Amino acid sequence: MDPDAVAKAFVEHYYRTFDSNRVALGGLYQDASMLTFEGDKIQGAAAIVAKLTSLPFQQCAHAITTVDCQPSGPAGGMLVFVSGSLQVGGESHALKFSQIWGND
Amino acid sequence: MDPDAVAKAFVEHYYRTFDSNRVALGGLYQDASMLTFEGDKIQGAAAIVAKLTSLPFQQCAHAITTVDCQPSGPAGGMLVFVSGSLQVGGESHALKFSQIWGND
Repeated sequence: MDPDAVAKAFVEHYYRTFDSNRVALGGLYQDASMLTFEGDKIQGAAAIVAKLTSLPFQQCAHAITTVDCQPSGPAGGMLVFVSGSLQVGGESHALKFSQIWGND
Repeated sequence: MDPDAVAKAFVEHYYRTFDSNRVALGGLYQDASMLTFEGDKIQGAAAIVAKLTSLPFQQCAHAITTVDCQPSGPAGGMLVFVSGSLQVGGESHALKFSQIWGND
């Protein structure tokens, strides 16, 4: 399968899950996973879910603007870069966001 | 050395070089390096330098806002995320930019 298509499908799945059921994001992380969120480093699926479910908003809707991916490492890993906007419940205008993934 | 300090030093060096002598960026890439630039994938130090020196501006000044890094892969690699602004010669206001590096 085309790596760009894999990256796009993953990203769409991730944010659809984020916007509908943040607890289920735990299934997309492992114990060795690390999330850096606004400078904080958070390790492991359980801690990452705790962080994402404690964000100070309930409703949110991510809109993806760009998805770029590159091969990474000898084991067929990928580096994925996403940018987009985030509409948070109760706020009148959208925030910009960007996020990257590596899976080596 | 602290990985965050290494990442910050690398990023400062990269953009100082970018702003003063783009050709010298070639020394920071290898033949296996890949740059994704606004959706284009460019492979190898020579091709990357050709791309960066052909951008439609001569003078530029990057200002770094955030540098985040995470360990990546079993071989001690890092994933680095940078955001900031870019002032281009002849333009009155700055552009936002973000860039990521992986070195597995």
